[in-house]
Amino acid sequence: MTYCVGMLLKAGIVMLSDSRTNAGVDNISTYCKMTIWENPGERVIVAMSAGNLAITQSAIQLMNEGNPHGDTRTSMKTVSSMTEAARLAGWALREVDRVDGAALRASGTGFSAALIIGGQIKGRQMRMFNVYAEGNFIQAMPETPYLQIGEFKYGKPIIDRVVRQDTPLLTAAKCGLVSMDSTVKSNLTVAPPIDLMIYEHDSLKVKVHQVMEDDDPYWNAVRKAWSDGLRDRFQKLPDPPWVM
Amino acid sequence: MTYCVGMLLKAGIVMLSDSRTNAGVDNISTYCKMTIWENPGERVIVAMSAGNLAITQSAIQLMNEGNPHGDTRTSMKTVSSMTEAARLAGWALREVDRVDGAALRASGTGFSAALIIGGQIKGRQMRMFNVYAEGNFIQAMPETPYLQIGEFKYGKPIIDRVVRQDTPLLTAAKCGLVSMDSTVKSNLTVAPPIDLMIYEHDSLKVKVHQVMEDDDPYWNAVRKAWSDGLRDRFQKLPDPPWVM
Repeated sequence: MTYCVGMLLKAGIVMLSDSRTNAGVDNISTYCKMTIWENPGERVIVAMSAGNLAITQSAIQLMNEGNPHGDTRTSMKTVSSMTEAARLAGWALREVDRVDGAALRASGTGFSAALIIGGQIKGRQMRMFNVYAEGNFIQAMPETPYLQIGEFKYGKPIIDRVVRQDTPLLTAAKCGLVSMDSTVKSNLTVAPPIDLMIYEHDSLKVKVHQVMEDDDPYWNAVRKAWSDGLRDRFQKLPDPPWVM
Repeated sequence: MTYCVGMLLKAGIVMLSDSRTNAGVDNISTYCKMTIWENPGERVIVAMSAGNLAITQSAIQLMNEGNPHGDTRTSMKTVSSMTEAARLAGWALREVDRVDGAALRASGTGFSAALIIGGQIKGRQMRMFNVYAEGNFIQAMPETPYLQIGEFKYGKPIIDRVVRQDTPLLTAAKCGLVSMDSTVKSNLTVAPPIDLMIYEHDSLKVKVHQVMEDDDPYWNAVRKAWSDGLRDRFQKLPDPPWVM
């Protein structure tokens, strides 16, 4: 499985993904699930993927090579808006489905994939999309400024509590790490290295791209501080009126 | 959906269940999912149920009426051990499946049900079981002293952090409320009233049975203290070395 979360904030974009891939419990590997197309001063587009790795790797490859249909060959390096980027991602998934889908369904594997595509192109708005396996998509909006794919439930409560559209980037990044920690702690199929990307509104370049291994000092400092903090605050919860 | 959690501790047993039932999003009702068979000084058996309400209500009814097969009609009021209680619960689910299963499967509804059965009978050990729709079961053990059914993922991280076999009952009850709060906050299909049952080892009577409505002062005090505490500790998380 996988856990990826993206946040579209007034101040910019924060995206995190884990790196565990598994085909059954005895076939566990590490694959980066974050792909960045950056042309400083012109565009930053970031994709994160969940689901069948063969499908998402093929789709990312197609987004990179570009769609040969239409007037020009459009890739993530040339799309003129983030909505076009989402459409390209949707086209890529449908293209993989066209080629591989029948065989996958015939074997009972099914066609499972999801992408989060976020970023900004010069002169255009920042946007973030959740692209479904079917190739259609939704976008993050002010009321719900975050998108999750994969094993999203364990890490959702803390995001619901903390993240609003005006949350600062660093706070959102910390919240993403705490959300990832809760998921890693409760689900074996989600694990470091953690890819963390921070983009500042209108900067048109990646501000932070950290790959945090299991022994990363900051990742572990956050985990420990959060764990200690939770225990501490937990101890301070009020006693019930029916106290024993 | 539903969320129920049971904890089998050295000091006793803590069980919590929500009360929301839904068949689609436009058919939401309130049903207690906790059933207590108590004969003070002799037995306390508590069942919590998740899944199809028609199935679990029928199964609870059968556990109450008893299994007519065998030498005597055995019900939750007469089983001689907790393992027998789990077997009775399994028999009840299979009996409902025998009567209703074919029609449910033919309609595409399927046969979805899960039970947690916990308690103690005089002279016997406390035990807790997760009984599956198929009628078989697992029991809570010292290494994993808790069982969950229904929408379990949102509320699992805090239990993983806090609950060990030697956790005091009141601490475990608070942890259950926090776990329930996280689930209620992130999932519309889980909601108060919350049933909370606390049983003290070898006491053979229910120590606490609270039904907490949405406006229950203690439920709200815990929610607020936890929410404020999380925010406070979150603010104190260390800044990264790549601080912005």
